[in-house]
This record gives sequence, structure tokens and C-alpha cells, in this order.
Amino acid sequence: MTSRRRHLLVAALACAMAGVGTDGHAADPLPSWNEGAAKQSIVAFVGKVTQEGAPGFVPPAERIATFDNDGTLWAEQPMYFQLLFALDRVKALAPQHPEWNTKEPFASLLKGDVKGSLAGGERALAEIMMATHTGMTTEEFEKVVKDWVADAKHPETGRPFTGMVYQPMLELLAYLRANGFKTFIVSGGGVEFMRPWTEKVYGVPPEQVIGSSGKLKYELRDGRPVLVKLPELNFFDDKEGKPVGIQQHIGRRPLAAFGNSDGDLQMLQWTAAGSGPRLCLYVHHDDAAREWAYDRRSPVGRLDKGLDEARDRGWTVVSMKDDWKLIHPDGKR
Amino acid sequence: MTSRRRHLLVAALACAMAGVGTDGHAADPLPSWNEGAAKQSIVAFVGKVTQEGAPGFVPPAERIATFDNDGTLWAEQPMYFQLLFALDRVKALAPQHPEWNTKEPFASLLKGDVKGSLAGGERALAEIMMATHTGMTTEEFEKVVKDWVADAKHPETGRPFTGMVYQPMLELLAYLRANGFKTFIVSGGGVEFMRPWTEKVYGVPPEQVIGSSGKLKYELRDGRPVLVKLPELNFFDDKEGKPVGIQQHIGRRPLAAFGNSDGDLQMLQWTAAGSGPRLCLYVHHDDAAREWAYDRRSPVGRLDKGLDEARDRGWTVVSMKDDWKLIHPDGKR
Repeated sequence: MTSRRRHLLVAALACAMAGVGTDGHAADPLPSWNEGAAKQSIVAFVGKVTQEGAPGFVPPAERIATFDNDGTLWAEQPMYFQLLFALDRVKALAPQHPEWNTKEPFASLLKGDVKGSLAGGERALAEIMMATHTGMTTEEFEKVVKDWVADAKHPETGRPFTGMVYQPMLELLAYLRANGFKTFIVSGGGVEFMRPWTEKVYGVPPEQVIGSSGKLKYELRDGRPVLVKLPELNFFDDKEGKPVGIQQHIGRRPLAAFGNSDGDLQMLQWTAAGSGPRLCLYVHHDDAAREWAYDRRSPVGRLDKGLDEARDRGWTVVSMKDDWKLIHPDGKR
Repeated sequence: MTSRRRHLLVAALACAMAGVGTDGHAADPLPSWNEGAAKQSIVAFVGKVTQEGAPGFVPPAERIATFDNDGTLWAEQPMYFQLLFALDRVKALAPQHPEWNTKEPFASLLKGDVKGSLAGGERALAEIMMATHTGMTTEEFEKVVKDWVADAKHPETGRPFTGMVYQPMLELLAYLRANGFKTFIVSGGGVEFMRPWTEKVYGVPPEQVIGSSGKLKYELRDGRPVLVKLPELNFFDDKEGKPVGIQQHIGRRPLAAFGNSDGDLQMLQWTAAGSGPRLCLYVHHDDAAREWAYDRRSPVGRLDKGLDEARDRGWTVVSMKDDWKLIHPDGKR
């Protein structure tokens, strides 16, 4: 290699490491976001809190960003993916439970009638969750989740569930981390259902995942300690639960919070109430062609009060249709 | 500056950044630890898990270390410092509670009779904790703790409580972090009592502090969201609670765990049961001259079963008397 070629190579490498294009401009850290008010509000906020000496500057240790998961980082239709997991688990466990053939909500489910199975409302749902999420050790459950995530396919798109994450949000997570933020997930979903895959898929390690949880019991089995998942709710991380979960787990108010439903409203309110620059953002599912369009009347991921409050308070509302160049990493529906 | 002087300065700076003395030897990262089996076990463990390509190597993201607080990172005699805080708060709040003058456990306490006040056992203790730790917002409580920590003095040594941390453990925290570990506190103490000062004193940010907690309630007060501390226990982070707290909060088994009492035994068992190299360490309070000497029969920080199990299983037991050159950062008792 000539000295000049080597010089160019080193320069290109240095630029790549610094996120700068070889034409001298900074590379766009959010390439899947169309130019517009939403993208601008994100970049302006990050600029404000990271510029040393500026009035809005926040030291890196205090740069906390919290993300809802279902509907914010990955899809949630036609129902929460964790519920699809639970339904698959009922089928997988059925041979060990002959009594389920005549007992609701299991009997309908095993005949393929999901709607009938869930007709029993919250009680039916709780029974399905308890039967599939408890009574084993945390290690056993982790393996079940990992296996399911590796193999299972979405009933409408036929794709792996972790392929149905939102590319623009992956870029946003990485952009915030590159600017010194610690990124947390704060989800109504089960914490033990998310942790086995969030690090690989989102770059969010288990200790930065907050979610709903069941009680655990420490036991010695033949002298070996295990944690057993009990059929008793420990914490429900939704609505008013989100600021509570944030306080119990992080102990610091987020600078930025991202959600897509009324279940995230209290998290956004709590974030907005801090002093200095804050970023509150709703992802609005308005793209029926590339994803699903739903808001005020959807049973899953309803966004009604939140949409009003976002408009009243000037929070960022992202139109998936207009603000996102693509939805999923591979560009497919 | 001459070119040669500049060169020497750059070399010295580079060495300092790499923790290497200018004589070419690595600077001792644990200078307050005497050479011996305890120090050796720590250094050998860190060497094993950080050496790339070696069989015990663990990627940085999985390097989790958990530390008990009372008696492990700071002193805990003649009673837990949080209890001394609570007693001080009873005195401070008494003018707003004239009924306390005739009502136990407050009446005895206000007459200076701590022993009489606590004669009511767990119930008396719970009443004191509820009266002093609940009924205000998390922000109000944080301010109360910060003010107390800044001003209060230990009843026997007359020193600020945060001066009664253990210098060798501060070095151990820093040494583990320099080797890619995330350091967590896992304490039976209240999480909201610790978080206001652990970052400054231990370098442990609030999101890496796990402790006992009360329930919280999200409320809008004149449109402004607050979290109110309720008089109801949420989680007791001691004994069997410690592995549970670790799982709920971190979701990953520690590689190393540090404690000083039977309340830490389950955390050490849980840590030891993982695969590959693990470090389980007990601090043994055997230094009556420089600190306090207590173990099997102490009401505070009892170390009995843990001492037996540590010896049976070959865990590291640190003699404060023999293994530590000094106890507190300023060298005073």
C-alpha cells in the first residue's frame, strides 16, 4: 500500500469511528427518520442537554431515557406478543394437563378458539398467564422464552417476532446511547419475558429492563439455590405503575420518555414535570399500509387521552406514516 | 518545554492513565489491603474473569458485583445508621405530633430512652419507621436524607456517617469498576435512604442501588405529578429477599458478592451457584481497637451460619484486623 493510500484509509477509519462522512459532514444518526418536526425535536433536545456550558446541560450520569416496549419498540397487533407466547405455551403444555380439555379458558383455546377462550375477561387471562408463566424456576422460564423467540412466527406476517421491531426506534436507542444516555425499557409486559432477548435486539441489558413481575421464592433444591416463579402478582408496570417502577428501579427521573399508548401517559407526565429540557414522545400508529392503524378505539395500545395531552402540551407525536422511511429493519411489512 | 521534557510528560500521563507507575510496575489498585490470602483471592478472581481467551473469561456486560451496605461498605454499630436517622427524625417531627409525648414508642424516645422505646420490638420499630419514612413525597424524603447526611454525627465517634465508610472497600469498588464490573448495592436498608448519597460516596448511581422499599402512589397535585411514600412495605431486601431483589432488579446472577452477616448468606449462595469463577467474600468484624468486634452473638450484623458456610466452602473471609491497613478514609477510628 502506498503512503497516500494508507493515509486515506486511516482518515476514512477515523471518520467512521467519529460518525463523520468522508465528505466532511456528520453522518445522519437517524437515517430512517424523514426530515420534519419529529426528528427535529429529537435532535434539538439531544443538542440542548449535551452541550457543555449551555443552560440545559445535563451530566451523562443523569441522562436517563425510558422506552415502552409493546407498540413503541416492536409491534403489538393483533394482540400483545407475550399473549401469543402464552397461547403457544398452553398448547405445548397441554399433554401434561389432560384436565384442560374440559376446563376453560384452556378448552376453547385448545380447539383453536382464542376469542372464546378470552371471553372470560381478566380472570381467563390471569389463568392463562399463571399456567404458563409460573411454577417453574427463573432459569427454566428463561430457556422457554429463548426457545420461543428463536422459533415462533407472527400469525399474520409469518415473521420472527424480533424482526418486527421498529428500525427508527433502534436508531433512536443507539443515538441516545452515543450521546451518553442510559436507555431503559419500562413496559407493562413481563420483565422475565423481555430480558432474555432485549440485550441482543435492542442493546438494552437485563438490569435496564423494568416490567411487570410475579413474586419469586428462594429455595434450596438438593442444596442448589433456585428462584421459583409464584402464581402471585408482584408489580404491574402500567399507567400509574410506570412512574412507580421508574422510581423503585432507577431512582432518577427520566430526561426523555417514549411511548405509544395511554398506558404510557403517566410516565410521560412524570418525565415532563422535571426541570430543564425534557423530551416526551408518542409513536402514533397511523400506517395501515406498512403496519397497523389504530388509536382512540383500539383495545390493544389505545391512544386517546395521551393524544389529547400530547397536543395540548406540545409533546412530539411521531406519524409512522410520514415520519418513518421504513418500519422494520428488513423493510418488509 | 523541550521536546524531551514533553516526551517524558506524555509518557508519565499515559502511564497514569493505564495505572502503571513510572518505574514500570503496575500501581497497586488495593493499597489499603495487606498482602495475604484475602487480597490474593480478589486479584486472582479478577484476573481469571478478565483475561480474554482464558476459560474463565466473562464479557464485561456480564460482570456484575453486588455489595451489602451496612457493615460491608460502612459501619453499623451501635445500631444501623438508618435507625439513628429515624430516631433523629422523631425528635425533629415531635413538635408537629404532641400526641407522641404520651404514646409509645415515641414517648420514651423523646425522653432520651432509646432502649425503652425499642422494647416494643418489631412493632415499635415499624411504627418509628412509618412515622419517619412515609407520608411525604419521594422528593421531600430525598431532601430530608440529604440534609441529615450532611449534618448528623455518629453518637460514639462524633464523625459524619459517610466518613465511616471502609477505605479498603472503596478501593475494591473502584478496582472492580476499572475491570469492567458494574457494582451494585444490595442492602436490607431502605433504597430511598441510600440513593441520595451512594453515587457521591461509593460511585454507585441510584439505578444500581437495591434495597428494602415501601409502596409508592402516583398522584397529581394541582396538576403536578408526585410519588407519595405509603406506610406499607413493598419489599424486604434481606436474607432470602436478596437473591429475589437481585433477580427482579438486575436479572443476571452476580459474579462476585460481598457481605458481612447472615443476612447476606443467600446472596452469596446464589452467587456461588453460578458456573465458572465466582468470588464470595465476607468482611469479618474482628477489630475492637480500630472498629468493633462482633459476629456470632451480635444483635446487629450477626455472622454465625455464614461464618461456618464460608469456612466449609472456602469463601474469602476478610479479617478487618489483619487484612486492612486502615479502616476509614481518614485513618481515624
